[in-house]
Amino acid sequence: MTRNEQLKQPLTGIIPPMVTPLLEDMRLDLEGLTKLVEHLIAGGVSGLFILGSSGESTSLSYAIRHQLIKETCRRVAGRLPVLVGITDTALAESLSLAETAQASGASAVVAAPPYYFNLNQKELFNYYEKLAGSLTLPLFLYNMPGLCKVHIEVSTAIRLSEHPNIIGLKDSSANSVYFQSLYQSLRGKPDFTLLVGPEEAMAESVLMGGHGGVSGGANMFPKLFVKLYEAAAQKDFATVADLQAIVMQISNSLYGVGMYSSSYLKSIKAALSLMNICQSHMAPPLAAFDAAETKHVTPIIEQFKLTLEKRGLL
Amino acid sequence: MTRNEQLKQPLTGIIPPMVTPLLEDMRLDLEGLTKLVEHLIAGGVSGLFILGSSGESTSLSYAIRHQLIKETCRRVAGRLPVLVGITDTALAESLSLAETAQASGASAVVAAPPYYFNLNQKELFNYYEKLAGSLTLPLFLYNMPGLCKVHIEVSTAIRLSEHPNIIGLKDSSANSVYFQSLYQSLRGKPDFTLLVGPEEAMAESVLMGGHGGVSGGANMFPKLFVKLYEAAAQKDFATVADLQAIVMQISNSLYGVGMYSSSYLKSIKAALSLMNICQSHMAPPLAAFDAAETKHVTPIIEQFKLTLEKRGLL
Amino acid sequence: MTRNEQLKQPLTGIIPPMVTPLLEDMRLDLEGLTKLVEHLIAGGVSGLFILGSSGESTSLSYAIRHQLIKETCRRVAGRLPVLVGITDTALAESLSLAETAQASGASAVVAAPPYYFNLNQKELFNYYEKLAGSLTLPLFLYNMPGLCKVHIEVSTAIRLSEHPNIIGLKDSSANSVYFQSLYQSLRGKPDFTLLVGPEEAMAESVLMGGHGGVSGGANMFPKLFVKLYEAAAQKDFATVADLQAIVMQISNSLYGVGMYSSSYLKSIKAALSLMNICQSHMAPPLAAFDAAETKHVTPIIEQFKLTLEKRGLL
Amino acid sequence: MTRNEQLKQPLTGIIPPMVTPLLEDMRLDLEGLTKLVEHLIAGGVSGLFILGSSGESTSLSYAIRHQLIKETCRRVAGRLPVLVGITDTALAESLSLAETAQASGASAVVAAPPYYFNLNQKELFNYYEKLAGSLTLPLFLYNMPGLCKVHIEVSTAIRLSEHPNIIGLKDSSANSVYFQSLYQSLRGKPDFTLLVGPEEAMAESVLMGGHGGVSGGANMFPKLFVKLYEAAAQKDFATVADLQAIVMQISNSLYGVGMYSSSYLKSIKAALSLMNICQSHMAPPLAAFDAAETKHVTPIIEQFKLTLEKRGLL
Repeated sequence: MTRNEQLKQPLTGIIPPMVTPLLEDMRLDLEGLTKLVEHLIAGGVSGLFILGSSGESTSLSYAIRHQLIKETCRRVAGRLPVLVGITDTALAESLSLAETAQASGASAVVAAPPYYFNLNQKELFNYYEKLAGSLTLPLFLYNMPGLCKVHIEVSTAIRLSEHPNIIGLKDSSANSVYFQSLYQSLRGKPDFTLLVGPEEAMAESVLMGGHGGVSGGANMFPKLFVKLYEAAAQKDFATVADLQAIVMQISNSLYGVGMYSSSYLKSIKAALSLMNICQSHMAPPLAAFDAAETKHVTPIIEQFKLTLEKRGLL
Repeated sequence: MTRNEQLKQPLTGIIPPMVTPLLEDMRLDLEGLTKLVEHLIAGGVSGLFILGSSGESTSLSYAIRHQLIKETCRRVAGRLPVLVGITDTALAESLSLAETAQASGASAVVAAPPYYFNLNQKELFNYYEKLAGSLTLPLFLYNMPGLCKVHIEVSTAIRLSEHPNIIGLKDSSANSVYFQSLYQSLRGKPDFTLLVGPEEAMAESVLMGGHGGVSGGANMFPKLFVKLYEAAAQKDFATVADLQAIVMQISNSLYGVGMYSSSYLKSIKAALSLMNICQSHMAPPLAAFDAAETKHVTPIIEQFKLTLEKRGLL
Repeated sequence: MTRNEQLKQPLTGIIPPMVTPLLEDMRLDLEGLTKLVEHLIAGGVSGLFILGSSGESTSLSYAIRHQLIKETCRRVAGRLPVLVGITDTALAESLSLAETAQASGASAVVAAPPYYFNLNQKELFNYYEKLAGSLTLPLFLYNMPGLCKVHIEVSTAIRLSEHPNIIGLKDSSANSVYFQSLYQSLRGKPDFTLLVGPEEAMAESVLMGGHGGVSGGANMFPKLFVKLYEAAAQKDFATVADLQAIVMQISNSLYGVGMYSSSYLKSIKAALSLMNICQSHMAPPLAAFDAAETKHVTPIIEQFKLTLEKRGLL
Repeated sequence: MTRNEQLKQPLTGIIPPMVTPLLEDMRLDLEGLTKLVEHLIAGGVSGLFILGSSGESTSLSYAIRHQLIKETCRRVAGRLPVLVGITDTALAESLSLAETAQASGASAVVAAPPYYFNLNQKELFNYYEKLAGSLTLPLFLYNMPGLCKVHIEVSTAIRLSEHPNIIGLKDSSANSVYFQSLYQSLRGKPDFTLLVGPEEAMAESVLMGGHGGVSGGANMFPKLFVKLYEAAAQKDFATVADLQAIVMQISNSLYGVGMYSSSYLKSIKAALSLMNICQSHMAPPLAAFDAAETKHVTPIIEQFKLTLEKRGLL
């Protein structure tokens, strides 16, 4: 058993939402997985979050989801906490993924709201209470209104934070008022972890009291985000300004290419392919950039690699 | 092999989106399933659609979804076409459900768009083309923007209707302009089936050229909807007006109880329980009406049973 | 005083949402107004609705709105009821428009919800009660959720229908379930007028009990819509099918040109210009089709004119 | 002529979106206006923004809007820049308000997108270009997607920032990714002012490079927000944390009372009434808190007054 029995609370720093390396035939790319895990650990991240949106969790067969949990935990081997996404529309499948996570030595699980039926806050609360009560691993809530259609409202999150098995929340709403409301309402619970999803908002949320970021771009450039996190945590404002500018240049130049909602993810996989870490394949209904799009992003990615290399951040 | 080798095209009439009878421990209620299938066939429906939204498909474990396909097809035994919902976020799981459907003797499969990532129309087209190309059973498109976040736009549906394996579309948008645009654009394909989801809109869509309805209320009262369909198909306006009034009274008095998005489904399961067909349990994240809500709906349901009995429609 | 003191209730038939003829410098095109009013009356419409969305009401200065009321009523001279849109975000301006309408001999006013602040149903109810209580002319509610952000929910509409000064509702939601709920709930009030906005849904709503349509396309081709309305009202299904096909061809071929939300309105003004009735200018923030778009729609419009001419519907 | 001919650029600090003091009969409360203007100037604000959403602009008759511009500018008498909201659905009315602003000595005008028709980015760009080209006063863009339905996308804002007459943007989206994208894209234009709307996000946006806040709560407690702004501008994190906690307590305890979208505004007017600055009346379709709601918020407001008094921030 290699789990971190004592998951540090609150969990701080950068916990990348790890992309899932796939072969062209949609099997797991096990070699890519090894390289990606080592790339991230070498980059100084505080943990790994697998099977989130960036991990294309909902596009993967269950067999592959279970395999990914085992293979990732085996590779990490207790060096870092592994957080496992168990978001699903079927409670039974979420619990099954959580069992595999537990058996594999993961530290916690993460669940966004069930994303098919439209739920009100009472239904959402009841769902999370039932889920948390059935788990042995601790649970992070995951607010993702853009994909799940429902907001975990502040009052619902506060009530759920009373549950002994719910230890944190990841917010991907990009709404700074929501995050501040949550943060101020939870000041009496300093161990409750508050992480922010969009990498563009990570630095400012940490400046304002957040514990860290689940920053997708950290798949490509973990050192950039780790350094930016540290600067924000230490209130080193000059470094924050400097690195935030790079983070935003990445966002502005890459994440809108092709005008897909998932351009962000396509760009990250394209970059990992250029860096020989894993291939760029994506599971349907998403797809990797086509040839023209890849040609467009390649020099941009190369330029960022140079920029970061010069600063010792690659 | 008991499949209807020649699925009548276009498929007309009432094809209820069958609810999934569940025991309290969330196993399939096999006895309830037998009774429900016989209730529907005796009610004169033209086919059964299982594993749709009303079937709580996305809330069921995969084991149960596969079991339901087999058990339903075995009970139907070729007496009617069975349409199987394979809607999923993971293509691999959709194909696996389709295989079970094919092996069990189902007549066709039905797929709404993958409902997690936000897709544009190009991605949606590519997804359906890939899906249709991988299936042996014919495919119905299922437009469900309220739950899947994306509309299968008219132009996308028209292009997809060219695929030899795509034979129809079920529209649950409740948008009459959309349905009319589709209907008029597809007049050159008289075999392409157009079904409407919301039971409140079934009669009018049939009057205007639609082929039938996937009417949830037909789980309770199949004869009412079959009779209403027939009246609409025969342009018997007096009967349409008479029965449509009952359909709307059911909708207005039952489907908003408790103010859940799923009140409709809770009401249907409550009625089936009162009628001793199956129990009212629902899979998380949904839940059956609580005691107070059940007490509220019981006399309303009893009244509708009386009303329909008097007309020979129970 | 030329008002129809006795506005027929319910109001039935086609009541076009009259476009506002404008000169290039954004003054009223008074000559165009004369021709348009005569074109519509000659087309057999049952009334005129001015200052609705199709009338670009919210884009016009108040001076022009008041002028349009006076000039239209003067031209109509009691031959038909004139309904005047008084939708506004400021109650004071709505009341001022209503005063001009009253003084000019209009028969009723029409108001969609105030469209800036997000209102709940209680606020909406209070607003309408205050408005209706301050008016001397009778009031039609106008449900336009796509532009006003809020639905006049069925229960709110039912409560408002009790007000002695509220005599009807125009629904532009295109949602057939909503319209049917309203219709069935209001069966006890046969004088309460229910009109439908989208012209594509007019025939079916009349078949199902609606009183008529506020059909934008009737600006161009009033006889087509009047004939279609009459066929639907008389349950002449062959004629309905025949004319509905033309209505949908117009919608499918013209109303999406250029991919603007307002393509529908641009097309109607382009057609009126081709027919020498009025010019195609539109008030900012909208704009008429540019040269390329106009070139594209011109032969399509000419073809429809030919088609309708052959049937005596031009 | 008392205008600040040289409006400082970028404009920094707190520019409250001034509420509009109203009498019960909806006339302007001129005495309240005097007191409110003096309260704000004494509180150290950098400018006044009148006729924004918090000023209930769209609910006021035009006569009152013009009167408010004149009366406010006369009272300010050049002591501060006055920014005048000219947001409207009719360009002609926006220009008329701008003329009054110019004649009264205001420093700039502010315009959100026209909020009735659904506009695409091309239409939005053309609209703003036409507006800016017709003004003599400089223009601030105002991004308010929650009320106007459309986002001024980053690429559109960047293109508009090239216009010599467009000097800044106020963002009320609460989306931190949007604000950061804008900020980083506009780094080459250090004089272009970027202000943030939601007061809960003001401190963090200033820490990350924003120029100040249009903070509604500053109507009640200008010194609190001015001090918080200054702390953020000076990177005095201890003070930021201390005062931000108060700002969030105000937001969490007051701005959700009664569950209206406008609870925020009702609370501010209730507080100003308690502080004897002006009455709490609001223009339809909004309404002041009722007696029960007022009773609920009164002790909360009194407590905040005590808290701020102790710190010399009242």
